[in-house]
Amino acid sequence: MIRQKNLADVARLAGVHASTVSRVLNPETRSMIRPAVAQKVLEAVAKLGYRPHAIAASLRTQRSSTVGVMIPDLTNPLFAAIVRGIEDALGAAGYTAMIGNSDNEPARERIVLQKMRERRVDGLILATAHREDALIAECRADNIPLVLVNRTVDDHAVSAVVVDDAVGIKLAVDHLVGLGHRAIVHLAGPQDLSTGRLRQRSFARAMAAAGQAVDSRLVLVCKAMTEAEGKRQFGALLGRRAKFTAVLAGNDLIAMGCYDELAARGLACPAAVSIVGYNDIRFVDRMAPPLTTVRIPQYDMGAEAARLLLARMRDPRAPVQTITLRPTLIVRGSTAALRRQKTETRNQK
Amino acid sequence: MIRQKNLADVARLAGVHASTVSRVLNPETRSMIRPAVAQKVLEAVAKLGYRPHAIAASLRTQRSSTVGVMIPDLTNPLFAAIVRGIEDALGAAGYTAMIGNSDNEPARERIVLQKMRERRVDGLILATAHREDALIAECRADNIPLVLVNRTVDDHAVSAVVVDDAVGIKLAVDHLVGLGHRAIVHLAGPQDLSTGRLRQRSFARAMAAAGQAVDSRLVLVCKAMTEAEGKRQFGALLGRRAKFTAVLAGNDLIAMGCYDELAARGLACPAAVSIVGYNDIRFVDRMAPPLTTVRIPQYDMGAEAARLLLARMRDPRAPVQTITLRPTLIVRGSTAALRRQKTETRNQK
Repeated sequence: MIRQKNLADVARLAGVHASTVSRVLNPETRSMIRPAVAQKVLEAVAKLGYRPHAIAASLRTQRSSTVGVMIPDLTNPLFAAIVRGIEDALGAAGYTAMIGNSDNEPARERIVLQKMRERRVDGLILATAHREDALIAECRADNIPLVLVNRTVDDHAVSAVVVDDAVGIKLAVDHLVGLGHRAIVHLAGPQDLSTGRLRQRSFARAMAAAGQAVDSRLVLVCKAMTEAEGKRQFGALLGRRAKFTAVLAGNDLIAMGCYDELAARGLACPAAVSIVGYNDIRFVDRMAPPLTTVRIPQYDMGAEAARLLLARMRDPRAPVQTITLRPTLIVRGSTAALRRQKTETRNQK
Repeated sequence: MIRQKNLADVARLAGVHASTVSRVLNPETRSMIRPAVAQKVLEAVAKLGYRPHAIAASLRTQRSSTVGVMIPDLTNPLFAAIVRGIEDALGAAGYTAMIGNSDNEPARERIVLQKMRERRVDGLILATAHREDALIAECRADNIPLVLVNRTVDDHAVSAVVVDDAVGIKLAVDHLVGLGHRAIVHLAGPQDLSTGRLRQRSFARAMAAAGQAVDSRLVLVCKAMTEAEGKRQFGALLGRRAKFTAVLAGNDLIAMGCYDELAARGLACPAAVSIVGYNDIRFVDRMAPPLTTVRIPQYDMGAEAARLLLARMRDPRAPVQTITLRPTLIVRGSTAALRRQKTETRNQK
């Protein structure tokens, strides 16, 4: 068998000191070396087929340099953007992410988490939190470094990066009220999720602050943050001829479900009803009509969550903290002044 | 310190035989145990805080049960869907994916791959192949199990799961010709990618097969498969008043760039020009207008690539193979019969 190449072989071929090779190969110190030199070292590494043994190193250090990231579904653009932010920030620190999709099923959450812990992840970032979450309580009890992203838990016992939904919903409500809308529907997300719950409570508060009464018949809770649920609940509302002129959806997918139901009934947005989404996922600016929505900084949420976790892993006694990022309102074509809406839903046959 | 719990403790608490616990904890045998029993075992595992040591096991077996998956960008819905298919198929076999984003930058590709190999991945799935790819040649020389997905290499020396682009492009061309279009633009993807190259060659062949001449001035190559490049090249074409009535874009993002350029010039699709995309990424059915496009089975491509890799890892002497999946044409609102297009691009001011 050919002799396994070592660090000195690489240094010789690249024409650098062995310590330089070592720095290039350690992701935590790679940035200390000039890119041109790092490139030369990596080419020598490739040419010689030299492989530092990360798994053996992880046994020595008792660290895997891997972080478990559990999300509901990667094909939801919200989570793809958050994960990209997480991966970029972890990668810059020499860590990698191990992604798991839960599809919002508790049984699957447990299996995914089990698998991550078998792999000895150094920490966890969860985008799957329920307001009361037994799995998260177990992780806390086990003292595994843990950060939540997007959703959080009611007792705020775990560090999290979330969006200021009170501000986001107020921006949306004030926009609709400013356009003359009074009878505003809220299609809330599931109430066992912090996002669903907080957005619903914020809706009531924002309406009150704007001097508007909330008609409880116009607040419906979707069982999931999906297009199908949005379509179903909005269809039920239209079916019983509720009187309203605008909808604030719990997220963009629920808003798209409203688009679908309007299309099925031959109604137009914003002519028949104004619609506001939440999140500003990729491509909603290209919908028919482009969706007015509350933009949350998805990539930055992921990157912040990764940085928060890295800090916790360095210092496990760091105090629990919640980082709240500010959303902004993006006004597009799905909302219009009440007087401009040619036909109101109340007038539909 | 508390005694570390072992397998027998778990078996006792769950009321099952130790071999059952072992089967549940081994992802490759988990499916042999009834879900209700598996759930009971996992609960006992969680309650006792028992952790099998996957890293130690991987040193013993010289396997990490991890597969490196390199893609251009997770926030491109095409790759999110492919990765989801990969992860589901790998997970069912007890493997996990380590994702890396290359942003189509060769220097970044090398760094991502280096990191994956330091982690001793058991195999690689690459969605980043160039037609001639030095990195892939290096991986081959090192005998690491390797499967390409979506894009492949010219010498077909590596197993790959791809789409039959000749069929896909022919479906699109025949659709446009059937609508009466003759002067058809092709906005090709980069020619150093198999997808960009093969789609362009297939365009010429499909036009010939349909009895149509290709005007070489109507075939433009985009530097990247992006909205910005699609807009730029389509803008250049409109700027020099080229005569055409339809566009076949190299992918959906390039098609969206055409939408953008039309909007900027106050032109409508399909009134001014018919547009066909490629891939059918999530949400293009909701664009204004909904995009006619060639649907490729994104999730299945990922799942097939994972299964192909798993087979190669079991038997490294398995012959190299290319799996070609058949695309379908999805007709939506962005294409119309030539006589119906109210104003043709040739008539624009």
